[in-house]
Amino acid sequence: MQLFRMESSDHSDDAMPKAQYVAGVAGRIYVFLTLACCLTYWALGMSLFDALNHALTTLPTAGFSTHDASFGYFHSPALEWAAVLFMISGALPLLAYLRALRPGGWRDRIDPQIPVFVAMLAAFVLIVTLYVWATGQLSFFPALTKAAFNVTSIITTTGYVSTDYLKWGPFVATCFFLFNFPGGCTGSTAGGLKTLRLMVLYRVVQQHVKQLLHPHQASPIRYGRKILTDDEVGSVGTFAFLYLSTFAVLSIAVSLTGPDMATAMSAVAACMANAGPGIGPIVGPAGNFSSLPDPTKILLSFAMIAGRLEIQGVLILFLPSFYR
Amino acid sequence: MQLFRMESSDHSDDAMPKAQYVAGVAGRIYVFLTLACCLTYWALGMSLFDALNHALTTLPTAGFSTHDASFGYFHSPALEWAAVLFMISGALPLLAYLRALRPGGWRDRIDPQIPVFVAMLAAFVLIVTLYVWATGQLSFFPALTKAAFNVTSIITTTGYVSTDYLKWGPFVATCFFLFNFPGGCTGSTAGGLKTLRLMVLYRVVQQHVKQLLHPHQASPIRYGRKILTDDEVGSVGTFAFLYLSTFAVLSIAVSLTGPDMATAMSAVAACMANAGPGIGPIVGPAGNFSSLPDPTKILLSFAMIAGRLEIQGVLILFLPSFYR
Repeated sequence: MQLFRMESSDHSDDAMPKAQYVAGVAGRIYVFLTLACCLTYWALGMSLFDALNHALTTLPTAGFSTHDASFGYFHSPALEWAAVLFMISGALPLLAYLRALRPGGWRDRIDPQIPVFVAMLAAFVLIVTLYVWATGQLSFFPALTKAAFNVTSIITTTGYVSTDYLKWGPFVATCFFLFNFPGGCTGSTAGGLKTLRLMVLYRVVQQHVKQLLHPHQASPIRYGRKILTDDEVGSVGTFAFLYLSTFAVLSIAVSLTGPDMATAMSAVAACMANAGPGIGPIVGPAGNFSSLPDPTKILLSFAMIAGRLEIQGVLILFLPSFYR
Repeated sequence: MQLFRMESSDHSDDAMPKAQYVAGVAGRIYVFLTLACCLTYWALGMSLFDALNHALTTLPTAGFSTHDASFGYFHSPALEWAAVLFMISGALPLLAYLRALRPGGWRDRIDPQIPVFVAMLAAFVLIVTLYVWATGQLSFFPALTKAAFNVTSIITTTGYVSTDYLKWGPFVATCFFLFNFPGGCTGSTAGGLKTLRLMVLYRVVQQHVKQLLHPHQASPIRYGRKILTDDEVGSVGTFAFLYLSTFAVLSIAVSLTGPDMATAMSAVAACMANAGPGIGPIVGPAGNFSSLPDPTKILLSFAMIAGRLEIQGVLILFLPSFYR
């Protein structure tokens, strides 16, 4: 919540329209994107029913499918690439579409998260593509399509699957496990740590290392053109610490209910990010959570809620001083 | 290094002896503890040769043994408890022994890390003990002995083993994987994130949550009686971020060289903390790293160096501006 305030104060100059207007336009952008997604899926071969259902779970980075094999059912690279485009659209800040219409230069019109998010995603897709291609498992373009679709699905925390990528080997499994953490952009429907926070943490490290080398050079921590207050930086650090601590505690709790370490940890990571598939035969892309025992499901439900509500909002309920 | 400066400035009042004197006394304390450890091991049944060798790898939390089965070779609960005591001694700040002789009350004489470290360790031992006992794998006291020895060995990053604890099930495996992260106290020979840093991160979170509830109450972040500067807090956050990022990148790199996800991630965590055993049949307590391919070993060597030199000191070498 702290971060959303930061995000909106960034926009609080006179040129910005009022909250009500913003909400209305944002809503219309969202409906427009959903319709565009639905029509694209339909044009590329889905039935209208499937197209509507998938559009309604693509933009909210939700990931439900009308088929057990998810996008794998359609065997269509064109559909996969269309989904990549709309999953990314869903993981960008909704206000960024409005901001692009703002007067001013590039730096004013593009949310600084977007280039970082897209570059990070492209790098991850490239790593997986090159591995699958170099190990001779797929030729280059099929590898690129499958990697782009499945990596985008996890990074945007959508959770669609078009193939059992765990068959590509342990390297891909470790990658996909860790892909559960970065998440999409702040202000989007995606989960995870979020690009804005990773950028702030990176700047903190960068500034600290600079000061080790040049102790007399003080430089503030910026996000775009805004200089961040200590409180804003502290809020990002707090979130990251709480996110990872909650991940560790829930991983231990989930393994107490039966699953092995990789299943437990990847299920918690996937649930906290609201992504979907974890690692291994049970919670992996070729399996599902239905066979897990009830206590595991209750713990994972808590992980989903805590991740969705960004931890602090949930943990604060456990503090006695909240009720005073 | 930032932290060590913080630690020593905490001691810089007039009552403190000079650096040279401190180093001399610290050295003598270290030699005294090593001799005490050697004599205790000898008295409890080790040969003098074994006692000396193990004493020389207990205090530095190093963990090498003259036997393949490590402490499991001796089948002696008394030796295990003696080792618990001396492993903890090795994971406490060396200057804490000197500080205990200082004039003043408890708060001046006890390093604030110590009660937190001991309480955390006791909690972890208790969790594992109760699990092993409640699942009927061992009766209470053998469970307590084995849990105390093996948990202390990992938390203090020593790396001795007295039994194949992975046989206790997936819950214990997940616990032991995560036990690689907290580490011992700052200023000791132990590795990992270190208790002092975890305390500072906890204070940052606590202060931030307090401010969410009571926005007009500003409170500084303290360690013991000292109020921490923003730079000191930033240094702790930077270290934690770099440690976990290095862990993620090296885990991906190691799984590229062959090992499965759990082996790769636990090997990297164990090497960065300089602990020793990871999770799984290869790098776990019943296995060893010898069968891993050469590229894996080179990456894990880097993990050991980066962890031992506290990351920043290693990463800074890769910055072009360091050489300017």
